[in-house]
Amino acid sequence: MDNRTEISSLGEFGLIDHLLKNNEIKNATTILSAGDDGAVIDQFGRQTVISTDLLLEGIHFDLSYTPLKHLGYKSVVVNLSDIYAMNATPTQIVLSIAFSNRFSLEALEEFYAGVYAACEQYGVDLIGGDTSTSKKGFVISVTAIGEVAPDNFVKRSGAKSGDLICVSGELGGAFLGLTLLERERKIFEETGAQPDLEGQAYIVGRLLKPEARKDIIEYFAEAEIKPSSMMDLSDGLSSDIMHICKQSEVGCVLYEDKFPLNDEAKAFAYKLQLDPTACALSGGEDYELLFTVSQDDYEKIKTNPSVSIIGYVTDAAEGKQIITRGGNKHELVAQGWNHLK
Amino acid sequence: MDNRTEISSLGEFGLIDHLLKNNEIKNATTILSAGDDGAVIDQFGRQTVISTDLLLEGIHFDLSYTPLKHLGYKSVVVNLSDIYAMNATPTQIVLSIAFSNRFSLEALEEFYAGVYAACEQYGVDLIGGDTSTSKKGFVISVTAIGEVAPDNFVKRSGAKSGDLICVSGELGGAFLGLTLLERERKIFEETGAQPDLEGQAYIVGRLLKPEARKDIIEYFAEAEIKPSSMMDLSDGLSSDIMHICKQSEVGCVLYEDKFPLNDEAKAFAYKLQLDPTACALSGGEDYELLFTVSQDDYEKIKTNPSVSIIGYVTDAAEGKQIITRGGNKHELVAQGWNHLK
Repeated sequence: MDNRTEISSLGEFGLIDHLLKNNEIKNATTILSAGDDGAVIDQFGRQTVISTDLLLEGIHFDLSYTPLKHLGYKSVVVNLSDIYAMNATPTQIVLSIAFSNRFSLEALEEFYAGVYAACEQYGVDLIGGDTSTSKKGFVISVTAIGEVAPDNFVKRSGAKSGDLICVSGELGGAFLGLTLLERERKIFEETGAQPDLEGQAYIVGRLLKPEARKDIIEYFAEAEIKPSSMMDLSDGLSSDIMHICKQSEVGCVLYEDKFPLNDEAKAFAYKLQLDPTACALSGGEDYELLFTVSQDDYEKIKTNPSVSIIGYVTDAAEGKQIITRGGNKHELVAQGWNHLK
Repeated sequence: MDNRTEISSLGEFGLIDHLLKNNEIKNATTILSAGDDGAVIDQFGRQTVISTDLLLEGIHFDLSYTPLKHLGYKSVVVNLSDIYAMNATPTQIVLSIAFSNRFSLEALEEFYAGVYAACEQYGVDLIGGDTSTSKKGFVISVTAIGEVAPDNFVKRSGAKSGDLICVSGELGGAFLGLTLLERERKIFEETGAQPDLEGQAYIVGRLLKPEARKDIIEYFAEAEIKPSSMMDLSDGLSSDIMHICKQSEVGCVLYEDKFPLNDEAKAFAYKLQLDPTACALSGGEDYELLFTVSQDDYEKIKTNPSVSIIGYVTDAAEGKQIITRGGNKHELVAQGWNHLK
């Protein structure tokens, strides 16, 4: 090959678009292919949702401050989150791992204890996988399978102008947890001082032991709400809302003062002289659900204390805007995490 | 943790048994869990088969002699082989990759060209995945999804005393291909001499571009044969037949003179002073199908030129035997590939 194009010049999403541009679908059972949190397969009326993640030590997690049991738990949860983000219920997972000889059987048992705890918590079955050595580092691949009533799955592409933009839970905590743990790791490496995590259980927990929003999907079913679009917040609100805008061909207005922020997280952000709003916009790994609903569902949505309405969908021509607390309007910029940079 | 048990003390299969021993199945839709080439999920009458593999550079493949296009093709094919080994038809795959910055866009395009070629060849859809950087090396995870008519899937555990033991195709070629390429790589590193692969296209092809035996599954359907047990040959005949014997609680007798060996492979084995039979028994990655059928199917099976009957199933008490060309009887020993050693 004569040409060499650096992958970083495309970014992660550009790369995926490029590699999949000639992807052809041959099977009638393939209802929805790559481009959403999960793919959808038809199974004679019932539909199956599939999602997969690949996690590498040193890229996606740091074992110097991540207990293996938490890592096992999180590896499962982040995949289940993708299934829920399709408005589906996860039922099974397959899990593959590769590990170097620095890992003992007891270490793997810890990891699997976390995997089983997540399976128990979410009622999913571990049904297979692959186990191998690596030359260096720990590699985890999880594929989750879920089910959804016919055509009840929710894509990123259905948001309509006028829809309400909602998020579950609180934003930015996982990013602040990561910031804290990275800081303490550096201090430990330089001085040998033990980590000071006093009063930071919330943000550390948000990073190390996230939960998937099963409750929100159950609430949708009970309240008979079908979001017009949905995805999970893995890369940060600004990057993720842009996926919905792009795939739905719409714009948006977000209100900074509506962002759900945790008090403990805010206090830590101010201590580090970080803007909590910036943490919510750019911080990844919250695994909350970002979704849009018709204004007709307003009365239903406002009764759920776990859901915040943070803005509304506009025509694409109006762009992607954020209204700050001071009332200023800014163009939203994607600052989500990009592992390729 | 106070104790440290080396994983190598259990071996790959011992490790899997250990980690899965407390695995509980909670969903009625989980029909078959870990322990076979694929898991089976019920989908309202129709059944879905799932299989996954994790492949790491330096462990499962060597990019110094593996063209990326072939690697992409093979990464898909080895998973499809697992689906066929369940007597099912693959329909979709999800593919995740991680790669360091030494890989250019053009390199990934080559890899995906192979992936798409395999999807085209076998009529499966690529429906999703995950893309990430790695610190070092190339990591590939593929999960394949297939379908099978209700309860028509074939496990490893159904072999009965008296059944015929059969294999498709020819054995040992991939191992000889690997031996040749490893030898040429060492010579290149030491002397700079270009590889001499003259007349070795067959064995090199068996390693670098294996095919999955879709034709055999189609033949089963046409001939109305349902094997009593089946798996694909990924670790070598001796290791793999032992899985069937263990899971079916039976013994076996294999006849060395019935092993299907390729002339070119045999010639190369003799040149290296290797026993072609040992290559068939211990060499992995042939991706042929190993299966057992009732003696009632003998008349049907013998008409298929791609299938060799290499022995028969016995009671467990009779052990696992091989009858050599000279008529001697030996106890079979598992010498399959074990990535953990």
